[in-house]
Amino acid sequence: MSAFADDDRGLHYGDGLFETIRFVGTHAPLWDWHVQRLTAGCLRLSLPAPDPTELREHALTAAAEHAQTVIKIVLTAGSGPRGYARPSPLVPRLRLFVQAFVARAPVDLCLRWCHTRYAVQPLLAGIKHLNRIENVLARNEWATEFDEGLMLDTRSRVIGATAANVFVRISDRWLTPSVHRSGIAGVGRRWLLAHLGAEIGDLSRRDVLGANQCVLINALRGPLAATELGPTRWQPDAQVRELQRAWQQLFKTPKVTER
Amino acid sequence: MSAFADDDRGLHYGDGLFETIRFVGTHAPLWDWHVQRLTAGCLRLSLPAPDPTELREHALTAAAEHAQTVIKIVLTAGSGPRGYARPSPLVPRLRLFVQAFVARAPVDLCLRWCHTRYAVQPLLAGIKHLNRIENVLARNEWATEFDEGLMLDTRSRVIGATAANVFVRISDRWLTPSVHRSGIAGVGRRWLLAHLGAEIGDLSRRDVLGANQCVLINALRGPLAATELGPTRWQPDAQVRELQRAWQQLFKTPKVTER
Repeated sequence: MSAFADDDRGLHYGDGLFETIRFVGTHAPLWDWHVQRLTAGCLRLSLPAPDPTELREHALTAAAEHAQTVIKIVLTAGSGPRGYARPSPLVPRLRLFVQAFVARAPVDLCLRWCHTRYAVQPLLAGIKHLNRIENVLARNEWATEFDEGLMLDTRSRVIGATAANVFVRISDRWLTPSVHRSGIAGVGRRWLLAHLGAEIGDLSRRDVLGANQCVLINALRGPLAATELGPTRWQPDAQVRELQRAWQQLFKTPKVTER
Repeated sequence: MSAFADDDRGLHYGDGLFETIRFVGTHAPLWDWHVQRLTAGCLRLSLPAPDPTELREHALTAAAEHAQTVIKIVLTAGSGPRGYARPSPLVPRLRLFVQAFVARAPVDLCLRWCHTRYAVQPLLAGIKHLNRIENVLARNEWATEFDEGLMLDTRSRVIGATAANVFVRISDRWLTPSVHRSGIAGVGRRWLLAHLGAEIGDLSRRDVLGANQCVLINALRGPLAATELGPTRWQPDAQVRELQRAWQQLFKTPKVTER
């Protein structure tokens, strides 16, 4: 494992952002949305945004090494002296972490409720910043007995899973929680919002437990059906399976390399 | 600058803790309290706590290099694969960052109110974890026009300064905000609580502005007097100067090296 500078503000303060992007060949169907979120995060944290063309060049070079690739981009406020004040000039540090990706057939998920709650913090909500202790603590409440855990905020609103967004169908409306106060505006979530014409709204535990379908999504694994949460059992129906096929289609046929 | 592993969970998720400790020679008067807070942080984050004896050995070796030293301890959840789930077994990574420390005579402070607010998150409050974007954003609201900024939580309670705790005297009672919902339980704060017999309580902006003295403290610089905040002017009085002398005394005469 190569080296990261010891004085990087990403390490010392979590002063940065990340994206995790799936490539099939050199094709990343959701690339633009990842870059848009990264750019929005930079604006929120007052960090200089990377040049999208250069970023794409780097990523395409890395993606060419594998049939399928997951590229994690980490952008930090770079090196600096001790203290919360950023150096001037600030020279951001951009690193790509590249791994071969093995697509797995969708599995259905057994869920739990996490005890760890998201703080309400509109300033940091939605963006994919590096301050992720809440997600870490939530995920580490269990080992392998469950597939994912749902997290509430400190006001008992459902926000999402530890590493995915959540969608529920109530009657025939699809709903997903707002991520303006806590949580992450997932790129998979954006795709599913558009694909389903879903609505954004506050959800309670009871709303989720009473829903007739429950789907989790992140940008690597796509939509996965939940089948179990506490006393509730769901039977994924044709509409849920169709979503999964649509996602697989999205990542199936590489377009001609756009380079 | 030497290297930190690229896959360290401190970088990727802020999964860790830190302490910043001042040494005079090999004497760190508040050492035990730093270690107690670090240990409490480990408990809260479910990380294995470092062995206090070994930690002290490392620190003393490092401190022996300078007349005065600031040692920043960074403890992370170590290396791991991508994802919020911690590796099993978890091997924490402990690093000491060592710098010569130059003690400065106390200066009085011109303060401001920060726009950036602390989220209310009891799970992470008090401990010195690596998720510090709130402090970074608050500190970077100004450059050099002010000496420090006071932060509120999202419910408009005063919590502290970006890198210090705050104490105010109202009538003849000294008060400092609770750090059970947001903020950091400073080691300097602990010393000043004991030294002043101060009380812990909720403070509004108005309470601070109406106080007859205002003091900031952190473990490196000790108690500093605020003289200006918005329309309010404070004239540091004999009691405040006495605090500063007591702090200087604490760090003045190295005891015989305890090694």
